[in-house]
Amino acid sequence: MIMDSENLGIEYESELHEECGVFGVYDFDGDDIAATIYYGLFALQHRGQESCGIAVSDTKGPKGKVISHKDMGLANEVFDEETIDRLKGNIGVGHVRYSTAGSSTRENAQPLVLNYAKGILALAHNGNLINAPKLREELSYTGAIFQTTIDSEVIAYYIARERLKTHSAEEAVANAMGIIEGACSLIVMSPRKLIGARDALGFKPLCIGRRGNTYMLSSETCAFDAVGAEFVRDVLPGEVVTITPDGIASNMTAHKDRCSRCIFEYIYFARPDSFIDGVSVYGSRIMAGRILAKEHPVDADLVVGVPESGNVAALGYSMESGIPYGIAFIKNSYVGRTFIKPKQSQRETSVRIKLNVLKEAVAGKRIVMIDDSIVRGTTSARIVKMLKDAGAAEVHVRISSPPFMHPCYFGTDVPSDDQLIAHDHTVEQIRGFIGADSLGYIPAKRLGELIEGGADYCDACFTGKYPIIPPDCDIRGEYEK
Amino acid sequence: MIMDSENLGIEYESELHEECGVFGVYDFDGDDIAATIYYGLFALQHRGQESCGIAVSDTKGPKGKVISHKDMGLANEVFDEETIDRLKGNIGVGHVRYSTAGSSTRENAQPLVLNYAKGILALAHNGNLINAPKLREELSYTGAIFQTTIDSEVIAYYIARERLKTHSAEEAVANAMGIIEGACSLIVMSPRKLIGARDALGFKPLCIGRRGNTYMLSSETCAFDAVGAEFVRDVLPGEVVTITPDGIASNMTAHKDRCSRCIFEYIYFARPDSFIDGVSVYGSRIMAGRILAKEHPVDADLVVGVPESGNVAALGYSMESGIPYGIAFIKNSYVGRTFIKPKQSQRETSVRIKLNVLKEAVAGKRIVMIDDSIVRGTTSARIVKMLKDAGAAEVHVRISSPPFMHPCYFGTDVPSDDQLIAHDHTVEQIRGFIGADSLGYIPAKRLGELIEGGADYCDACFTGKYPIIPPDCDIRGEYEK
Amino acid sequence: MIMDSENLGIEYESELHEECGVFGVYDFDGDDIAATIYYGLFALQHRGQESCGIAVSDTKGPKGKVISHKDMGLANEVFDEETIDRLKGNIGVGHVRYSTAGSSTRENAQPLVLNYAKGILALAHNGNLINAPKLREELSYTGAIFQTTIDSEVIAYYIARERLKTHSAEEAVANAMGIIEGACSLIVMSPRKLIGARDALGFKPLCIGRRGNTYMLSSETCAFDAVGAEFVRDVLPGEVVTITPDGIASNMTAHKDRCSRCIFEYIYFARPDSFIDGVSVYGSRIMAGRILAKEHPVDADLVVGVPESGNVAALGYSMESGIPYGIAFIKNSYVGRTFIKPKQSQRETSVRIKLNVLKEAVAGKRIVMIDDSIVRGTTSARIVKMLKDAGAAEVHVRISSPPFMHPCYFGTDVPSDDQLIAHDHTVEQIRGFIGADSLGYIPAKRLGELIEGGADYCDACFTGKYPIIPPDCDIRGEYEK
Amino acid sequence: MIMDSENLGIEYESELHEECGVFGVYDFDGDDIAATIYYGLFALQHRGQESCGIAVSDTKGPKGKVISHKDMGLANEVFDEETIDRLKGNIGVGHVRYSTAGSSTRENAQPLVLNYAKGILALAHNGNLINAPKLREELSYTGAIFQTTIDSEVIAYYIARERLKTHSAEEAVANAMGIIEGACSLIVMSPRKLIGARDALGFKPLCIGRRGNTYMLSSETCAFDAVGAEFVRDVLPGEVVTITPDGIASNMTAHKDRCSRCIFEYIYFARPDSFIDGVSVYGSRIMAGRILAKEHPVDADLVVGVPESGNVAALGYSMESGIPYGIAFIKNSYVGRTFIKPKQSQRETSVRIKLNVLKEAVAGKRIVMIDDSIVRGTTSARIVKMLKDAGAAEVHVRISSPPFMHPCYFGTDVPSDDQLIAHDHTVEQIRGFIGADSLGYIPAKRLGELIEGGADYCDACFTGKYPIIPPDCDIRGEYEK
Repeated sequence: MIMDSENLGIEYESELHEECGVFGVYDFDGDDIAATIYYGLFALQHRGQESCGIAVSDTKGPKGKVISHKDMGLANEVFDEETIDRLKGNIGVGHVRYSTAGSSTRENAQPLVLNYAKGILALAHNGNLINAPKLREELSYTGAIFQTTIDSEVIAYYIARERLKTHSAEEAVANAMGIIEGACSLIVMSPRKLIGARDALGFKPLCIGRRGNTYMLSSETCAFDAVGAEFVRDVLPGEVVTITPDGIASNMTAHKDRCSRCIFEYIYFARPDSFIDGVSVYGSRIMAGRILAKEHPVDADLVVGVPESGNVAALGYSMESGIPYGIAFIKNSYVGRTFIKPKQSQRETSVRIKLNVLKEAVAGKRIVMIDDSIVRGTTSARIVKMLKDAGAAEVHVRISSPPFMHPCYFGTDVPSDDQLIAHDHTVEQIRGFIGADSLGYIPAKRLGELIEGGADYCDACFTGKYPIIPPDCDIRGEYEK
Repeated sequence: MIMDSENLGIEYESELHEECGVFGVYDFDGDDIAATIYYGLFALQHRGQESCGIAVSDTKGPKGKVISHKDMGLANEVFDEETIDRLKGNIGVGHVRYSTAGSSTRENAQPLVLNYAKGILALAHNGNLINAPKLREELSYTGAIFQTTIDSEVIAYYIARERLKTHSAEEAVANAMGIIEGACSLIVMSPRKLIGARDALGFKPLCIGRRGNTYMLSSETCAFDAVGAEFVRDVLPGEVVTITPDGIASNMTAHKDRCSRCIFEYIYFARPDSFIDGVSVYGSRIMAGRILAKEHPVDADLVVGVPESGNVAALGYSMESGIPYGIAFIKNSYVGRTFIKPKQSQRETSVRIKLNVLKEAVAGKRIVMIDDSIVRGTTSARIVKMLKDAGAAEVHVRISSPPFMHPCYFGTDVPSDDQLIAHDHTVEQIRGFIGADSLGYIPAKRLGELIEGGADYCDACFTGKYPIIPPDCDIRGEYEK
Repeated sequence: MIMDSENLGIEYESELHEECGVFGVYDFDGDDIAATIYYGLFALQHRGQESCGIAVSDTKGPKGKVISHKDMGLANEVFDEETIDRLKGNIGVGHVRYSTAGSSTRENAQPLVLNYAKGILALAHNGNLINAPKLREELSYTGAIFQTTIDSEVIAYYIARERLKTHSAEEAVANAMGIIEGACSLIVMSPRKLIGARDALGFKPLCIGRRGNTYMLSSETCAFDAVGAEFVRDVLPGEVVTITPDGIASNMTAHKDRCSRCIFEYIYFARPDSFIDGVSVYGSRIMAGRILAKEHPVDADLVVGVPESGNVAALGYSMESGIPYGIAFIKNSYVGRTFIKPKQSQRETSVRIKLNVLKEAVAGKRIVMIDDSIVRGTTSARIVKMLKDAGAAEVHVRISSPPFMHPCYFGTDVPSDDQLIAHDHTVEQIRGFIGADSLGYIPAKRLGELIEGGADYCDACFTGKYPIIPPDCDIRGEYEK
Repeated sequence: MIMDSENLGIEYESELHEECGVFGVYDFDGDDIAATIYYGLFALQHRGQESCGIAVSDTKGPKGKVISHKDMGLANEVFDEETIDRLKGNIGVGHVRYSTAGSSTRENAQPLVLNYAKGILALAHNGNLINAPKLREELSYTGAIFQTTIDSEVIAYYIARERLKTHSAEEAVANAMGIIEGACSLIVMSPRKLIGARDALGFKPLCIGRRGNTYMLSSETCAFDAVGAEFVRDVLPGEVVTITPDGIASNMTAHKDRCSRCIFEYIYFARPDSFIDGVSVYGSRIMAGRILAKEHPVDADLVVGVPESGNVAALGYSMESGIPYGIAFIKNSYVGRTFIKPKQSQRETSVRIKLNVLKEAVAGKRIVMIDDSIVRGTTSARIVKMLKDAGAAEVHVRISSPPFMHPCYFGTDVPSDDQLIAHDHTVEQIRGFIGADSLGYIPAKRLGELIEGGADYCDACFTGKYPIIPPDCDIRGEYEK
């Protein structure tokens, strides 16, 4: 990701954010799963750094006792050994969250834990409902009150209401999934069941893992590697799976032929060591690099990636083009949440605080610099300048995605249109703005090659072709306190 | 309060706890009321030390924006200058809370802030509903979900539902107050109104204050003194008052002839510098001391109070009896929440860590020791022993309330019956247990004199005569997570 | 203490501060003394609230291993159970400290722990050396470096240097005590000995206690009560005591006939439940009240103390005069270090945040109000106004000390002369300033009666007659970083 | 660095630690350098993560006022905006520190700030004195006391004592540098001068930078890049430089022909974007990879580095051998200090929590895996196993240094001999232990090629040939409290 903020050096954070990661565990035998959830969340931390939480229960204990802990911060800040020890149970769900500034409050941290007519539930979800405002209004006119601004609360109300009409929690979840529209990969812990559900279009990933008699649900497979579990299979778009000691039951009622997997998971969000819906993220990035090399070849000495996310595509470009792969940047890995940002007066040097160029490696060289996207353009401009200041003879920028032009309504936090440089500038204008000698993107029509030829993906942020008609107004932040 | 725990010295806390204090402010002109609420809560801190919170809004700003902050701890621990500065608004409500161990979680901190069909509300209440379990069940079967275990959530649901049928928030509050049973002094902040309500029996206090164009609602008048406001009047039992720039509107529909003010507010909970329903708390404690002197006279050299709560009654005893008032105890005021408790092996000395006797004052003297109640008896025994060890010739214990024998269902946290020494011991047995030379209580039939002759009070903890029939089972802790 | 700051309500702290408390323990048998030191410091907390620390060693373990922990804050803030558990040992020393703002840094927290030629020492002291600047200069010209600005470091250097010439640590301490001038009650922990020393004039208290085979040294006897120890005797002025399993050795070489005990310890600093040099602090305050009643009788209805320090003297006044003792003030005990102070604009109400008047008790009454001192006068003025606002007919102020006019060089933090109202105002002028109907102080010549007729005390802050000629310039704050 | 601990996965930290980084700034014009020091320390954070500190002064203000702040933790944990703002000054020095467990206390954090006969000094140093125990003993027999266990205190004493005999602080520093033996890159801030010194053998780096009228001293040049400064020159071995507004004065008295630069700075400690003594660290690691390719060629499909430190050498190996460079590992970058370590029972999966293999990249491939060293061997074994589990056909390990066999006495924290696998195992035995198909190290005799042919380096940890005769016993940890 080229960090594109006006104050990039200052933030050195991407401005495209995945909004959540979910992880659930059900150990049929044991009673000590909180640490497993903690390590799972730790492996999914890249999906959300603002808040996190864990809720656990003991299916063998008194029904309906849930212990939970959630707060603002990273997993290793929110949890300590004492807290993990206190979270005794054999079934549980965890969550990591990123959110837009306004609603980033402790009240909104997940999992949501609630009592309803049939007992206690805990919910964690990833994705954005596009009909949430409408559903909230409908619910409120039947006497609902809302204590958070997260979609989980809407889903929870529908599960609670459907549960009054159905025979099981999983039926209630399936019915609720039929009411909501948009992206929703959901994990629900009921007193005796761990339920996973993915919306019919399957925007966001969800998969099943196993370690002995312990079953897991996770946003990404990399979390299974971290906790020593094996990947079992992906939850399918539209599927509701119910994990109990009797096995994994599947409800495929809502499953359809087509789906709309988020292509940006492969390009940027997911960890390269994950597999999503059968496709290696690493492999899709190598492919992105290869496509770039074929579409936008250039005579150069070195291919480099902007760390960390540009590195694998850079390797792909190098493989395809034969131009040697190199390391051009050193990233300072000690930036924490409390890092003091340089003031305006110190801005010129601020990007270097977090990223430095290896002069020795780039001086006199013609460089192909690979990044995954350009958002505002400012950060790209600074990094190109750093390379040139370090003596690079030429800098050819290659972006492992198409130009980013449209908002996402399904769970990615994107700046408004007028901040997206590609929204109203041509590629040549962008090239000029960032100071590159040439600039090339992946053509939108070739995105399918990243996931091995399939067409069942959502590329609306590049093409504007939304798989569900988006709401008229911006649905984000409407219920901010 | 004689601290009666087996591990008293260890806890040196009363075991009778008020469960809440509430404070609301509406400044028609300004926009900076958070500090006022903070100081108000600080003055009410004796009513609850476990969690506290403030929610504010700006009636001149965008409708329905509420900023809130709440957490576990004392007001001076939960709030700092930065937080108070961030809580910009001209209408707001604050809360301090004590609760039984299990449900003492951050989720349960008040005020409760919520969205419903008509916008945003914030609620803070003091008291305990005796039909809350029944109401929760009813609500849940119409699709309600519960994220806390506090009664405020039940009240909020009814306000939200009644609001759909009525023309104003205050009507909805009045209707909701008609549904609930038990003790409930409530402050509700709607986007443009500050509403106060007191249940029909008026268990818990609530009063109105004013400082220029700023109106306030408070559990006790001492908070008005702290913030430089004047006492206007008490909210009456069964009354709903609505404060707007147009004035104070009153709905007296639910007001009845009789009421059941908590007599223990006068004996122990409230600050002596407060006036409740027109009666000085100081005055009622002086009267308690006088009654004790008349009912249980004794030939002695010195009257002393167990600090702090026994001092005023001791003064009353001295006035009536002519026996000189003395100071016998020095209390260490540096005990904080993080104080390390002595271990079992160190127990013998533990009470002295927090309370020491002035040998010089008591040696050779016949002492009348006044305390407000005996709960378990253990602490009284230790304090009597400390006086005797210091050379007191005789120790005559006088208690400024009747024997404490029955649970409270209306907002006071009391140990279970079998821990109440008076539940199954005679006064003489208790005297023997605590090692006193004589022991006298206030007769229950004279309690009315504490509040100037009225009969409209609740003394069920002493007499077992509950003004509302209590539920069959213990209603506390039922919804614990 | 009448709180005399211009911003009194804001600070509500005395402006006369004791500067330290010390506590040492040697358990010949056990290995777990840190908790005892912690409770001892807790009992001495009134002597210093800015920083505290504990250093322990195990005389049976490897020689010279000292574990220490110190930080800014109260004992219950600086120590938690884990820290106390980590401080394993059978010999140790603790310290609580107040200091003037500038030098209130973590580096200056005590005990001072140091290596020198003969091993490790830990030191804690109370008092102020008047020749410290001169000694620092002399030391630095022989190559000393200073990492703190506390006198302990100077004392430590002399102990270290004398130790090279002597046969024992206690001899080195005795020699060092002969070099320093001023107030110094000192506890030194050497690897195998606990040493206590008091300067020849005995300004500050130090006493010996015992609990079985555990011996203790403490600034005040109240700490012995807290930990279940018995008072053995006072360390005498000029004495060095050395506690080892062989017993208590005493070196009286520096003991003289006269001494200069700080009279303000009796008037204000020490806890009333302590005995200093054989005199009850409670008793001396009762006596102060009696003297006031005889020197400044008045026709009145009620005698009240300004809490907490004025209460005992008020009792003495009541005893002598026959005017009834009353309670006029309620103090809010929840003010902590992080309490947010009212801003300038809120000042009018600020004093009431921490202190409120019992209107019921004072309305229409002629009041005698007892306090221990007047420093700037502003606070007294506010409190008198509060009483009058509450309806007091007359307010007669009586101060249980003479007018405070001169700086202290021996360990009390006093504002500069121009801030002391008595420095350049007559009693009548002060009376006018504070708005009292009459004002009376204890005559300086009667101070001896407080300590049962002795003449061996320092009253220089009242009389300007210093027992040691003070240095030309202000010696405080000179070595501030 | 192959993480070699028995509990590697658990720690995922190197077990070879640089012990410090230093940074000094003198701004002749401004008064706001604390932020610059903070960013400088941030760039040097890899040199020490346990504690850090900053001390500043204002050369235009009152002489001798130093403001400092230091504590345990990373720069972004120890400093916040308020603290940085409080550190006003135009001259200052900062420090980051790693230390062996026992002496990792707040007292030992640097810079050391002290008063001596001529005013105030602040010192920060990197390196280990081998005659510190002897010097401490000598000093203590002339009356010195030690409050820390760091070498800076010894150096400070000698500077203070020499200063009494000399005309300037820089002379005193030069004289002190003549007394100490071992590694010492030192920055001293005197009231009006910033002094840098490097021991005669120049073990540890120190260099000069400039930004306008602001001069800087730093352990590494990467810190200059971070703060927008230019590299001026290295401080030479044996040189003392004195920076004042008059320019940079140099004292070369102690400079010799030979020096002993730490070769491990190039191999592992320093950041690859730094230049040390004129040599690019990046370049020397590329060279290391090339040498490995020539010395230990192998028929393979992919060269990969163990992140982060193995990557550059892997690139060099790839360049020389023609075998493609690949990415095999994904590192989780969210591990913080408070990360909860897996318990024994979870150990098998623990390494994967922090490092995962890209199966897609390595399956079926013959891998050359480059790391900078093998310490215990356990971590290498685990990583090789991870590659094989992921399907690697062969794993050939190449280490960009010679076998690590001897302790370092000059500032690197190394496990004891018996924990160094190379100490008593042959290369073939180590290969077997780590499960590699082949294993190759850089021959010690070729190390000079890393720094462009020079012979002036210390490789004692590989060869046992110490440039100064080491002390008989282990000098570390001797003065632990």
